[in-house]
Amino acid sequence: MEKFMIIGERIHCISPVIRKALAERDPQPILKRAQEQLEAGAHYIDFNIGPAERDGEELMAWGVQLLQKEFNNVPLALDTANRKAIEAGLKVYDRTHAKPIINSADAGGRIDLIDLAGEYEARVIALCAKEGIPRDNDERMAYCQEMLERGLTAGLEPEDMLFDPLCLVIKGMQDKQIEVLEAIRMMTEMGLLTTGGLSNVSNGCPKHVRPILDNAWLAMAMANGFSSAIINPCDAELMKTIKSCDIINGASLYADSYLELNEGAFAFNG
Amino acid sequence: MEKFMIIGERIHCISPVIRKALAERDPQPILKRAQEQLEAGAHYIDFNIGPAERDGEELMAWGVQLLQKEFNNVPLALDTANRKAIEAGLKVYDRTHAKPIINSADAGGRIDLIDLAGEYEARVIALCAKEGIPRDNDERMAYCQEMLERGLTAGLEPEDMLFDPLCLVIKGMQDKQIEVLEAIRMMTEMGLLTTGGLSNVSNGCPKHVRPILDNAWLAMAMANGFSSAIINPCDAELMKTIKSCDIINGASLYADSYLELNEGAFAFNG
Repeated sequence: MEKFMIIGERIHCISPVIRKALAERDPQPILKRAQEQLEAGAHYIDFNIGPAERDGEELMAWGVQLLQKEFNNVPLALDTANRKAIEAGLKVYDRTHAKPIINSADAGGRIDLIDLAGEYEARVIALCAKEGIPRDNDERMAYCQEMLERGLTAGLEPEDMLFDPLCLVIKGMQDKQIEVLEAIRMMTEMGLLTTGGLSNVSNGCPKHVRPILDNAWLAMAMANGFSSAIINPCDAELMKTIKSCDIINGASLYADSYLELNEGAFAFNG
Repeated sequence: MEKFMIIGERIHCISPVIRKALAERDPQPILKRAQEQLEAGAHYIDFNIGPAERDGEELMAWGVQLLQKEFNNVPLALDTANRKAIEAGLKVYDRTHAKPIINSADAGGRIDLIDLAGEYEARVIALCAKEGIPRDNDERMAYCQEMLERGLTAGLEPEDMLFDPLCLVIKGMQDKQIEVLEAIRMMTEMGLLTTGGLSNVSNGCPKHVRPILDNAWLAMAMANGFSSAIINPCDAELMKTIKSCDIINGASLYADSYLELNEGAFAFNG
């Protein structure tokens, strides 16, 4: 089993600091958050510029070049609803260390992003949803299958696709949690890679509860084969859980010091 | 799904304080640890008197009556290698709230404790081992099947048996962990209840690492259907993990205050 792959979520336009930095093309807040996440053990950095309808192309290209220049061509996930901005990012992305990830396609209006991944030999997060939340795992797995076939047709390898079962909020959708975990297991048994936005799970819960729920959910997901997630790698407890589950899954070798090590982390210092 | 059942492990003759209290028939240290565990949310209290070859019968009967008198006939697990001592405990045990648990039978020399459970209408922990550690899950599941049949023949219901896959130490048997988790899943899919001594998992690891590994392992086991464990309920982080996994499994209902609640804990104050 491969080690769990960590996609750092903290460069996101929903953060006021980041939104301002993006608007003003101010490198410092963006580079700071990238460095913190890489030091904490992130393998990929998500660069989320939001809808970015006006200047998305220029903004995405700027950010990709900024981050890769500073951090040894760090692997990036290009995150926006603006397809042209994704394409602009792909054009300038340096693949020395890893392919870019397109975040994200779905089985509905954004399915063509899978074709884009094929065209640019990129990876792609494939959200198993079409309109709203899938009713059940039959629907979820049908979308998964549909997107897998689309990807193979577009020339992707299965491991270029990260299937997102759609992590659902516990507060309001508690009865759906087992289903999501089962979907992860089914995808894993099909030999597919999985990912998801972990923080969805505890959305709306009290602040002191959130990290505890996220931790438990992630360990349960990793017991079902979950192979990566979009998380905050600066959450030290979460990183300990990931490292421990990697040990239990046999994905990394036990050493008394394993919690202090960032084995396999991206060497951003070159 | 039922809520996870917690068997408190802290009254164990390996502890010097408890060993002395057992030898001197001193109630206070024993009652103190029982109360702490019940306040923390234990459903059963394990009463471990060790081999107790000399005075086991009298000692077990003394302890059972002591604990049940003080704590509203608290459910107990009777834990010793001395069969006669188990029997002496069963004879004086009050079943007002729950059957006693015999800890433990195995598929080897201690298989007759399953018959004893049948005779006394007790529950029994059935360790899926004969001589040493099972080589693989074929062997483990064969023992499970053998003990299940023995139990049914002895008049037990399947839910009277708690199958212990034998939690193995990570440090030295890291490559066996996935197998143990898979055994839990197989037993769960057969409709059986499971249990195990959690602290085995992190035995020999540095002190600061142990709770983190135990936590991750337990969440992964609960994702596979693990239905109870012999643990230290005074480990607050572990209890948070159990409560969170119960929420995710749909075994208890989410409330913002769920971490503060001991829903379903034993009402030891009567």
